[in-house]
Amino acid sequence: MNRILYHKNELANDQLLLTDARAIHIIQVLKPELGATLRTGEINGPLSTGKVRVLANQKVMLEIIALETPKRPSLDLLLALPRPKVLKRLLPQIAALGVDHLYLTNAERVEKYYFDTHVLLDDFLHKALLEGLQQSGDTCLPKVEIVRQLPAFLDETALPENRWLLHPYATQNLLEVETLPGRRLLAIGPEGGWREAELTQFSELGFYQVSLFKPILRSDTACIAALSLAAAKGEVCGRA
Amino acid sequence: MNRILYHKNELANDQLLLTDARAIHIIQVLKPELGATLRTGEINGPLSTGKVRVLANQKVMLEIIALETPKRPSLDLLLALPRPKVLKRLLPQIAALGVDHLYLTNAERVEKYYFDTHVLLDDFLHKALLEGLQQSGDTCLPKVEIVRQLPAFLDETALPENRWLLHPYATQNLLEVETLPGRRLLAIGPEGGWREAELTQFSELGFYQVSLFKPILRSDTACIAALSLAAAKGEVCGRA
Repeated sequence: MNRILYHKNELANDQLLLTDARAIHIIQVLKPELGATLRTGEINGPLSTGKVRVLANQKVMLEIIALETPKRPSLDLLLALPRPKVLKRLLPQIAALGVDHLYLTNAERVEKYYFDTHVLLDDFLHKALLEGLQQSGDTCLPKVEIVRQLPAFLDETALPENRWLLHPYATQNLLEVETLPGRRLLAIGPEGGWREAELTQFSELGFYQVSLFKPILRSDTACIAALSLAAAKGEVCGRA
Repeated sequence: MNRILYHKNELANDQLLLTDARAIHIIQVLKPELGATLRTGEINGPLSTGKVRVLANQKVMLEIIALETPKRPSLDLLLALPRPKVLKRLLPQIAALGVDHLYLTNAERVEKYYFDTHVLLDDFLHKALLEGLQQSGDTCLPKVEIVRQLPAFLDETALPENRWLLHPYATQNLLEVETLPGRRLLAIGPEGGWREAELTQFSELGFYQVSLFKPILRSDTACIAALSLAAAKGEVCGRA
């Protein structure tokens, strides 16, 4: 854990009392002295520091001082639901790379039983995403929405200004595609790819097909690669 | 497998006889008709097509027609040896993303026992890298070198024109750094980072510090992100 995260309602007068895995991590891994300052953060709130006030057996009390609140990422991800094993591995990485809305969607080539996995239960999702944030040191938890009817979802949702569809053989690289000011949405298809009707709808909604540097990557590698390019591009453009 | 790979010495008069896992994959997963054409490739040689001539129980004979030989990637990776579990997961992805030389190096903060893992045995390495190539459809197998003395290695090796060192807090993004024509070497440190003396040597050798869009990522996520940025950047520059 590179940052100890907590919910706002865990704070009482700027005191954070920990008695769970976070306390054990602090005691056994971070091993601070009394009075030391740890990197902390409120989930979907400000970064903060936590001064160690009490250190006991499985119990840690931190005095929290709030710092700046990070801007939420301006990147949304629409991801055709991958197989549960892949999803489980991807979730912390998606959170660490920085995504605002994470839409996990059905598609014609998504196996229906993928939706039955325990990985999609609120508690599991929350824990997996939190693991990624604790690693990257961020506080912005992706907002997950499970989409069972993609066509209706696309029709009814106010979509971001930049709409990109990852396509293995698109002529334009994700790095090169023109970016309008504003939010970005990246759509990544299922292992067998989108069906024609799905591609037509994306196209009618102004989704621009972009490729990676390699046409065929494992779906989790492709997802990390695409998020990395989009995030790096966003940072560089944001600075310019 | 998106491409069936074989060694040159497995060919006899352009006939490729398969009786191992590749034959089983063809029969059970690809399920071609006699006379169908499969995507094949010679390891470190040309892409090719394989026309199915014999299909029997656990036995497949393909007639190979060689196509173009892909250019080797112009990107080398110097990676501080990660823990075996992470290395195992990374190897196929490194091969799929496209790396020419893969230097797995010791560093002051690399645990010595990491070098004892079976993952570093030739057979295991070869198999893991091949898995990545079969997925991405490439034929260029990364050339792996295990570096036990980093300072000597750096002193004695002819290094590529572009030398980049991934550093969490470097002010310049990997996407922005100026790229000279020619080869590129990306150095990625161990989980705890490089030591001062190591950083000094890299700096004296002209390694330029570059960051990702996020300072702290899990080491495998950081590796995939950095390779993706370097590869995409290379492709876009190569085209311009």
